[in-house]
Amino acid sequence: MSNQFQVRSDLSPGPLANVEFLGFDVFGTVVDWRSGVARAVALFLDRHRIHVDPLVFADEWRALYQPAMEEVRSGRRGWVRLAILNLENLKAVLIRQGVAADGIPPEELAALNRCWEQLDPWPDSVEGLTRLKRRFAIGALSNGHLAGMMRLARFGGLPWDVIVGAEVARSYKPRPETYLRSVEAVGLPPERVGMVAAHNEDLKAARACGLRTLFVHRPTEHGPAQTTDLAPAGPWDVVADSLVAVADALGC
Amino acid sequence: MSNQFQVRSDLSPGPLANVEFLGFDVFGTVVDWRSGVARAVALFLDRHRIHVDPLVFADEWRALYQPAMEEVRSGRRGWVRLAILNLENLKAVLIRQGVAADGIPPEELAALNRCWEQLDPWPDSVEGLTRLKRRFAIGALSNGHLAGMMRLARFGGLPWDVIVGAEVARSYKPRPETYLRSVEAVGLPPERVGMVAAHNEDLKAARACGLRTLFVHRPTEHGPAQTTDLAPAGPWDVVADSLVAVADALGC
Repeated sequence: MSNQFQVRSDLSPGPLANVEFLGFDVFGTVVDWRSGVARAVALFLDRHRIHVDPLVFADEWRALYQPAMEEVRSGRRGWVRLAILNLENLKAVLIRQGVAADGIPPEELAALNRCWEQLDPWPDSVEGLTRLKRRFAIGALSNGHLAGMMRLARFGGLPWDVIVGAEVARSYKPRPETYLRSVEAVGLPPERVGMVAAHNEDLKAARACGLRTLFVHRPTEHGPAQTTDLAPAGPWDVVADSLVAVADALGC
Repeated sequence: MSNQFQVRSDLSPGPLANVEFLGFDVFGTVVDWRSGVARAVALFLDRHRIHVDPLVFADEWRALYQPAMEEVRSGRRGWVRLAILNLENLKAVLIRQGVAADGIPPEELAALNRCWEQLDPWPDSVEGLTRLKRRFAIGALSNGHLAGMMRLARFGGLPWDVIVGAEVARSYKPRPETYLRSVEAVGLPPERVGMVAAHNEDLKAARACGLRTLFVHRPTEHGPAQTTDLAPAGPWDVVADSLVAVADALGC
């Protein structure tokens, strides 16, 4: 993009003038999960002399994320926190890689699983959130569980006012309940809430629930060869290259 | 008290060495509800030329708080957020004072009800919480609802990492579920969580659930003639005169 941000011109007097709360997707939008997971995985693989590219391992682990949540979304499985799904998926990836997951102490698998709570924010995230927080209440509206979101915020200095999303709603995005129960929890109607995400599917579902939408480009979330979410794919209210650019766009 | 704080000597190497999360009672412990409510009530009473002492009004409003929650605790009434109970109680106090609550626009009653989201922290609260946050994850563990706790934190600059308590648990303190579900939500066993409160009943219930306990003296929460909670009434792990003194006691 040549412009740092774009705002639709029909929003007056200021963009999102009636919005009071911004809910953020976190994995990919606010933090760089791929580098952080690969960093932890590399240490683990070295220790066990397993010869797999840590980035490939991270991508495989992440690839199981949506199918695991889909079991819950579809109702085939009852509500279960993301930390449980991530741990199950870790074992599955180990087995695929020919590693006997049963031979690894459960404490060590649990410790590796906590890498999802120790991910660096993108370089613009803390500044962007801090500026947005001056005008808006801000919160994680993620599929992550509450304890994980809390620890991730402490790890990276994310200044959330509140954590809502999947655990509060007992429902995974993009199910409408996740947005609607989160919006209800912060005491606002959907049109006074903005969803901030690097994923078009997330914004599409939020918009269908009546929320305002803010798209952030994260073209290397999945690495240099990323093919998804390289451009906005809907009539999003704000499109920006970073959270700092979102703050610029909203005059914060 | 002559000492600024007291710590039981059996806690070594440091007090609460294994605690990772501190949950705080908020109304009375972190914020001064009586002055803040009376301030908003005074403006309302003036506008309607109602001649009632705003502090008496605030005390009457607060006096209905426990009985209203008791309806939910007892199961006679299903789960309902504190904002709803506060609004019902406001109408009840107006009627007791001979005011026709039905003649007052609902928006005005709703605005007055939001005074519970605009209460000043005690002078030591923000500094104490900020210091405690360096070592512990900290969160509201209040009977307040999530949106109200979020707005109160923004109003007073309370640096919570997370908001748990009644709404997350769908249960009011001192019911054990409120503590146990909050503790579960932050991903810890009860013994790794400390409950911080100015109310002995709150700490008694928390301790029965296995939490550690920290008592903070707030001898003027109910005004200069306060008769309750003037002294610790149980074997609490820490007793202190302020949240800054709690931080001192815990070496933060």
